[in-house]
Amino acid sequence: MCRWIAYRGESIALENYVTAPKHSLIEQSQRALEAVASVNGDGFGLGWYGEHGEPGLYREVRPAWSDENLRHLCRHIRSHLFFGHVRAATGTPTTRPNCHPFAHGKWMFMHNGQIGDWALIRRKVEEMIPDAYYASRIGTTDSEAVFLALLGNGAEEDPVGATCAVLARLTELVRASGTSEPLRFTSALSDGRDLYAFRYVDRGSANTLYYREAGGSIVMASEPLDMERDYWKAVPAGHVLVARAGAAATLQPIRQPARIAAE
Amino acid sequence: MCRWIAYRGESIALENYVTAPKHSLIEQSQRALEAVASVNGDGFGLGWYGEHGEPGLYREVRPAWSDENLRHLCRHIRSHLFFGHVRAATGTPTTRPNCHPFAHGKWMFMHNGQIGDWALIRRKVEEMIPDAYYASRIGTTDSEAVFLALLGNGAEEDPVGATCAVLARLTELVRASGTSEPLRFTSALSDGRDLYAFRYVDRGSANTLYYREAGGSIVMASEPLDMERDYWKAVPAGHVLVARAGAAATLQPIRQPARIAAE
Amino acid sequence: MCRWIAYRGESIALENYVTAPKHSLIEQSQRALEAVASVNGDGFGLGWYGEHGEPGLYREVRPAWSDENLRHLCRHIRSHLFFGHVRAATGTPTTRPNCHPFAHGKWMFMHNGQIGDWALIRRKVEEMIPDAYYASRIGTTDSEAVFLALLGNGAEEDPVGATCAVLARLTELVRASGTSEPLRFTSALSDGRDLYAFRYVDRGSANTLYYREAGGSIVMASEPLDMERDYWKAVPAGHVLVARAGAAATLQPIRQPARIAAE
Amino acid sequence: MCRWIAYRGESIALENYVTAPKHSLIEQSQRALEAVASVNGDGFGLGWYGEHGEPGLYREVRPAWSDENLRHLCRHIRSHLFFGHVRAATGTPTTRPNCHPFAHGKWMFMHNGQIGDWALIRRKVEEMIPDAYYASRIGTTDSEAVFLALLGNGAEEDPVGATCAVLARLTELVRASGTSEPLRFTSALSDGRDLYAFRYVDRGSANTLYYREAGGSIVMASEPLDMERDYWKAVPAGHVLVARAGAAATLQPIRQPARIAAE
Repeated sequence: MCRWIAYRGESIALENYVTAPKHSLIEQSQRALEAVASVNGDGFGLGWYGEHGEPGLYREVRPAWSDENLRHLCRHIRSHLFFGHVRAATGTPTTRPNCHPFAHGKWMFMHNGQIGDWALIRRKVEEMIPDAYYASRIGTTDSEAVFLALLGNGAEEDPVGATCAVLARLTELVRASGTSEPLRFTSALSDGRDLYAFRYVDRGSANTLYYREAGGSIVMASEPLDMERDYWKAVPAGHVLVARAGAAATLQPIRQPARIAAE
Repeated sequence: MCRWIAYRGESIALENYVTAPKHSLIEQSQRALEAVASVNGDGFGLGWYGEHGEPGLYREVRPAWSDENLRHLCRHIRSHLFFGHVRAATGTPTTRPNCHPFAHGKWMFMHNGQIGDWALIRRKVEEMIPDAYYASRIGTTDSEAVFLALLGNGAEEDPVGATCAVLARLTELVRASGTSEPLRFTSALSDGRDLYAFRYVDRGSANTLYYREAGGSIVMASEPLDMERDYWKAVPAGHVLVARAGAAATLQPIRQPARIAAE
Repeated sequence: MCRWIAYRGESIALENYVTAPKHSLIEQSQRALEAVASVNGDGFGLGWYGEHGEPGLYREVRPAWSDENLRHLCRHIRSHLFFGHVRAATGTPTTRPNCHPFAHGKWMFMHNGQIGDWALIRRKVEEMIPDAYYASRIGTTDSEAVFLALLGNGAEEDPVGATCAVLARLTELVRASGTSEPLRFTSALSDGRDLYAFRYVDRGSANTLYYREAGGSIVMASEPLDMERDYWKAVPAGHVLVARAGAAATLQPIRQPARIAAE
Repeated sequence: MCRWIAYRGESIALENYVTAPKHSLIEQSQRALEAVASVNGDGFGLGWYGEHGEPGLYREVRPAWSDENLRHLCRHIRSHLFFGHVRAATGTPTTRPNCHPFAHGKWMFMHNGQIGDWALIRRKVEEMIPDAYYASRIGTTDSEAVFLALLGNGAEEDPVGATCAVLARLTELVRASGTSEPLRFTSALSDGRDLYAFRYVDRGSANTLYYREAGGSIVMASEPLDMERDYWKAVPAGHVLVARAGAAATLQPIRQPARIAAE
């Protein structure tokens, strides 16, 4: 269980969503309201796009709430598209390479969820990563492996299609592994221009995901960042929220992975 | 607000109280029940006496709950007298020198509380530290300053008397500083042989402190470590619990600091 | 002994001086050529001015050479005036608040040197910090104390005059303390607009300082950042290099602190 | 390139070899004399056997030379068999799980060397780890992978035989990978009772390894720990040093991996 935010729109300082709001990401790191783990203190990360194609990353193993650097960076860095993530580890160690977001070339990804029982399917998921992407595997999380599997399965050309295909395969793997653990996948993916957010579950309830749009900008968050709940819409489970540059966001059903898996 | 444990008795592995019990110190680092801050994730520390006069220390800025080293050390280190502390910072930075316990020669100290508004009286408390002890001030906390003030005011000869005198002076300083903040002092002090625990407050309620005795051993803790509440006794506010080697623990009233202050 | 760089000029990415040059600051963290300590691995820091009055800071206890975040930040952050510092500790602990640069309001400072035997004069230097600045003392280094003493002695109005006065007082204190250790002070100070660099010593040789000017930009460094030694000029000992916005840099003698001290 | 020590004999405090000698492991972390990298500042680790079957571990990402905890632990922990390791990373990130030594059950391992071009053969080496040991793969180093491959190939029954077999396979993999990089393997392996140290190379010169025996105790080190060079013997390349409890150490040739590889 983790908490995250993603933003696309006018260039703004990261502090607007990471540290300033009443229920900011930092606040959620100490007192999350809609998660099993209310404390997300096992490291954190920021990723942002600037003038380079590839994003900048700042990842740390300390809790977000006590990190002096984080406040400085959020105040001084501006971006038109950025991610923020606070982690509650589910088994893999608290190291910087295991903190989200992950980056490869111009692509960036972060995740809140669980890929069944990771110990049971780890090798099979790592096999889904082509050699060309395997050198980028510098950590040990399920999330990073899934990110590289997405890229290795065509996400650079068709992000939504590739993610649906990988989710179908993951659903299949988790079910076949004999675990009763769910597959929960609430993720954000971007190439610096467009932003995609997925909310999917196989078994049980999907991890929460909300978004708020205004004036061409959109912010997505595991939990609403303020008390104006009317402005926040939930992404329905089984859907992807697509926020392309210069267009209003759209919701699309994820092509049924379970069905694909069953075919 | 912090949580701590202290033990004196037969030599045992630290894991017996730090990591193993149902409501162990590690558990209290994530879910404290009797504190304003339920999360104590701003660093932690262990201190233990072995065959040397001076104690060993292990202090880290990461949360106790995710520290792999902590579990190894608690399993492998045995001691007849040890301290464990998880920190919820109240203003000073999260650094190793700001983590408890603190050591000077054979003396060791840790604290849970608040010395009024530290910014208002910091210089005056630092003036209470004689030059001979000032070189040991390697951090910036109020707690470390008070520890060195205790030693500089005779704690090595008369721990209880020196602590009462310093508490009287601190009460005076806090009151004179114009703050409405309380002076809360729930602390442990030892020379490796005897163990003293103080529970004192000026204004408001004292931070909790419990102890459990059996067969010549005693464990003291901010919160009971297990569900057998009948075995745990509360140290009354305004008292010091004295656990000398080879003797049953005794409770003594702290000679009224407020009264001394008023004299 | 530490190594540092400071830049003022056209807005550029920090990587131009911190990570890219052949003998960049990162390179100097592992293989300094003109210092007693060739390894500067006891933490590091970046400070930069952007659109806010006060600078941003990134400080870390790990060595600069292995910090992934540092490379990201240097690539993505641009600034018209920035500092970079790699530390070789001389006694105080390796903590983030003990890493340079230090900031207070819009002022920023970093230091390479030694204030005699710090243990002997620490209290007297801390007394030089007025109460209004003492709350900003979050670390324990001599450097941070001197910075706050500079501000408390008028540096905000007259940076060069205040520094000369403080150096006079420090020279006096070090000499009177009975140590044979030198006072070495090679420092940078800025308000985000103008940049001042001091090279001073009382006893022995001054720590090195070089600068290179071109097209309205200036970079200062403990050691030349490239092999084009002809372009680098040494700041003479006992001088301050003043680089005001929109003007060529000038060298001024530091009004003799030793003489002032002797008066 | 890293530096390490291993000890088996009378139970002693770790400080005797880690911190106290003139050219102690800590000294080697800053100024190694017989290595390409003279600075080994990318994390470190201690591993020791006590009263439990499995060893205790303390691993940290900061340089050994500035770690206050390390000095405390080395002074207070005694052991009849312990490892110490300082790391100079060769590509994988500086994280605790990537620091040596590694432990699995009662077995402990550390390594100084290089397995060809890791990016080229990583997947094949990970395939050498049977599923039963793969869950213990918590880091990303070549060294940890080789350790688990050793255990998965029978090291628990026949440490020397299994290591020779794995070295043969690694030699084969490195050669077939098309790299011109060497396979360098200078390692220590123990079950808490017996201690094995291997010095092997395929292509180029082997990393150094020395040992000193006296009165039933043996210490092995990448570089002699003191200036009494006459007491230190070099382990010849292509040999394993076997130090069984209660017996004098013996040198055995490693059954020629290259020849096995060629068969």
